Amino acid sequence: MPARLAELAVRFGCELRGDPDALVERVAPLQDAGPGSISFLANPHYRRHLPGTRATAVVLDAASAAGCAVNALVARNPYATYARIAQHLYPARPVPGGRHPSAVVEAGAEVDPSAWIGPHAFVARGVRIGRGVSVGPASVLLEGVEIGADTRLVARVTLCEGVRTGERCILHPGSVLGADGFGHAPDVDGYVKVPQVGAVRIGSDVEIGSNSTIDRGAIGDTVVEDGVKIDNLVQVGHNVRIGAHTVIAACVGISGSTTIGKRCMLGGMVGIAGHLVICDDVALTGRTAVFKSISKPGAYSGSLWADDAKHFHRNAARFNRLEELARRVRRLEGGPGAAGGGDGDE
Amino acid sequence: MPARLAELAVRFGCELRGDPDALVERVAPLQDAGPGSISFLANPHYRRHLPGTRATAVVLDAASAAGCAVNALVARNPYATYARIAQHLYPARPVPGGRHPSAVVEAGAEVDPSAWIGPHAFVARGVRIGRGVSVGPASVLLEGVEIGADTRLVARVTLCEGVRTGERCILHPGSVLGADGFGHAPDVDGYVKVPQVGAVRIGSDVEIGSNSTIDRGAIGDTVVEDGVKIDNLVQVGHNVRIGAHTVIAACVGISGSTTIGKRCMLGGMVGIAGHLVICDDVALTGRTAVFKSISKPGAYSGSLWADDAKHFHRNAARFNRLEELARRVRRLEGGPGAAGGGDGDE
Amino acid sequence: MPARLAELAVRFGCELRGDPDALVERVAPLQDAGPGSISFLANPHYRRHLPGTRATAVVLDAASAAGCAVNALVARNPYATYARIAQHLYPARPVPGGRHPSAVVEAGAEVDPSAWIGPHAFVARGVRIGRGVSVGPASVLLEGVEIGADTRLVARVTLCEGVRTGERCILHPGSVLGADGFGHAPDVDGYVKVPQVGAVRIGSDVEIGSNSTIDRGAIGDTVVEDGVKIDNLVQVGHNVRIGAHTVIAACVGISGSTTIGKRCMLGGMVGIAGHLVICDDVALTGRTAVFKSISKPGAYSGSLWADDAKHFHRNAARFNRLEELARRVRRLEGGPGAAGGGDGDE
Repeated sequence: MPARLAELAVRFGCELRGDPDALVERVAPLQDAGPGSISFLANPHYRRHLPGTRATAVVLDAASAAGCAVNALVARNPYATYARIAQHLYPARPVPGGRHPSAVVEAGAEVDPSAWIGPHAFVARGVRIGRGVSVGPASVLLEGVEIGADTRLVARVTLCEGVRTGERCILHPGSVLGADGFGHAPDVDGYVKVPQVGAVRIGSDVEIGSNSTIDRGAIGDTVVEDGVKIDNLVQVGHNVRIGAHTVIAACVGISGSTTIGKRCMLGGMVGIAGHLVICDDVALTGRTAVFKSISKPGAYSGSLWADDAKHFHRNAARFNRLEELARRVRRLEGGPGAAGGGDGDE
Repeated sequence: MPARLAELAVRFGCELRGDPDALVERVAPLQDAGPGSISFLANPHYRRHLPGTRATAVVLDAASAAGCAVNALVARNPYATYARIAQHLYPARPVPGGRHPSAVVEAGAEVDPSAWIGPHAFVARGVRIGRGVSVGPASVLLEGVEIGADTRLVARVTLCEGVRTGERCILHPGSVLGADGFGHAPDVDGYVKVPQVGAVRIGSDVEIGSNSTIDRGAIGDTVVEDGVKIDNLVQVGHNVRIGAHTVIAACVGISGSTTIGKRCMLGGMVGIAGHLVICDDVALTGRTAVFKSISKPGAYSGSLWADDAKHFHRNAARFNRLEELARRVRRLEGGPGAAGGGDGDE
Repeated sequence: MPARLAELAVRFGCELRGDPDALVERVAPLQDAGPGSISFLANPHYRRHLPGTRATAVVLDAASAAGCAVNALVARNPYATYARIAQHLYPARPVPGGRHPSAVVEAGAEVDPSAWIGPHAFVARGVRIGRGVSVGPASVLLEGVEIGADTRLVARVTLCEGVRTGERCILHPGSVLGADGFGHAPDVDGYVKVPQVGAVRIGSDVEIGSNSTIDRGAIGDTVVEDGVKIDNLVQVGHNVRIGAHTVIAACVGISGSTTIGKRCMLGGMVGIAGHLVICDDVALTGRTAVFKSISKPGAYSGSLWADDAKHFHRNAARFNRLEELARRVRRLEGGPGAAGGGDGDE
């Protein structure tokens, strides 16, 4: 769906520097773009590709625009503006409405006529599916599931009993919402299963990545608020609450009954222990482990990084004797531990 | 299914302090409970919610009972007792027996008439399914699979050729048992695939979480013993053996040919290298990495924790020069390295 | 399919020490093998099982052959030779050709008559499936997917729009290729979804493990080159490129736009940040986190290891004051910080 630069500038509130009649019809990275492509520059890391680009137009900020030899769409927030332009050039395909003959929809399910139920999907009785919803191939919706308008289950999504989602969500293939939380009470002869009688409630505009898992509450619900974005292979334990507009990168694990605030950013492979409270506006860099609640907004880290293997292992071996090293320093300082006894600086 | 407190006290061996005729019909957390609810107190962290609870009854231990203003069911093990009461209030739905018309069951599969084969399930020839088994929607059972009585495949479970499970297991959506282990022999021009000719054997009373993966053995089987509980997104490599009543939290990875003892507890995101032996009764706290066998029961840790990002990075940079720091301390102590040469305390 | 040792020696280029007419028909581990079994010795860790083995034959190298009391097939690379012999003893079942009546193949899909489309599979219009391909049960192939000859989708594989694979690939159950990458542009009122308009291109002889996820490119494709082997529960972000013959163990996460070289080895749970370049021939040991590009081949590490929990926590607490410790050492050395001020060795 080609668009004139003048139209894009008006529609998305950019300043156009260049030819208003130039047409773009696809997006491309700066370095690979050709005529008809629009590109963007947001990460300064890629500024080196700007002078040589053959894109028809580039979305960028005013500071970078001077170095742009082709048409420029100057935006306050180039990445968000690019995203909106790309949505315009690649409109989502309309949902057809109806159901594939191979789908199984049990009597007593309420499916809006504008919704689509794909091949081999299963929709149990008591499910309610809103306007414009798309239930992709091989998805499984167990009893009592409710899906808000315009939500899209791409394919092979599983929603267990009573899971509810808001509007305009996207659930990617293999995601599982509402399976039992991990509740096992130890007893003398093994574990007793703790029934997981809560459900999962997902807000609107939430995206959940491929093969991610969000468990149902043990008692009370697991809650994901509006605008939350969750990447692939993320685990969300029972009775977790995730605040609005928090983003969670891939391979993160959040243990049960933990509350995460609004507008947090969790880097890849972050792990958070159970029964904690993370306040609003916390950023956790990749691979950080959180074992205590965090009550102050800000950036937190906790991961060592790759080093030459031999060098790393020598330092790691020292780490294992770090307390002893501290004690030796204390002795050198002539502190209470100087005679080899206690360590005064504990 | 409502129950009188007197009945619960007798059935589950608690001491009732309060009204024997009071009825409970659902469970709720202490702080959200209303009339008709039963709650429990096991984690002292939540004791602050006890005085204000509006639950009809609370399951707790003798030490906490004094602070309980409502009916109390006093139990030696409140959490396990609560679990049993909750199972009683929320009985599992009986398995109907039969098969959905959309299921595909190949000739030569032996399915007990009391078992249920759900919508879009596939059961290959040579599969044997026991009494009371429930094969949930869209599950795939390849040749030679055997499922013990009363085991439940919730939905979209994949069991590859020859996987066997015991009785009363629960397999959650997206779990994959018996796919090929990761065996590739390096050769001059790339890797040669090593056929994975073992299978997977699961004991009884095992629970396996959503999207977890348990690979078939390379030669010989991968074995999960009775009573093991595995959370979501856990990887179990080929020829691993997991001892009875071990519990494994989410996002754990266990590399091939490792043996884990009985009654171990693996915290979230624990990683265990291959070809190791972990003895019985080992607890690994969240995110611990294990690169050597463990022969002594006890608790082991290995993860740093979240810190202010700048503070953490300064310390991590020091970590990378830790050996040098130790050498400087040695010099200050006047050791063999004092002249700047070797380090005597290696 | 039994084989004579003489035939195996000729076919796979080994030196036979023993009875050329001895027959083997299955593989077994050294310690469990009985008559009719062939075993191998590659990992010296298992050499202790050699003297007592009851295998009919063992594949091993010349150095170990002296200690072998049964028939020996002496090979330069025993593990790769064993792998080829096992492939010979356990030949892959021929793909039948055709489609199961429950499969849905839309008009306009091009399926080679020799390919198999399994039960409950869905093949959208515009899909092209090559010679000898096997599409396992409940797999979902969306529009424009192309699958090269002799590739096998074991079961429940999801290939989103436009994903292309080469020949002889194996995709394990639950794997998801081509779902949207994680692209969300922050704006004043939440995040704007960035359309992910690239695809996924997989080379030939690639294996992808159960429940692994490989996202489509944001602009431009995500690329996995020939001979790459990926284990279970691995996340590959959008626009990643993985070089030929790289092997990736389970639970690894690779963030978007990172390039990994050829012949790399990534241990389990390795995490790599986005927009990095890892050169050829890099080995990352298990659990290493990579936050910077690596331009020099070699082995890199970054994970502490399990220690007695109390001992570990004391050292970890010291880690959090490591910079302070270094400053105290500097003072003892009489450096610029001696008066308690700045730290000269930053």
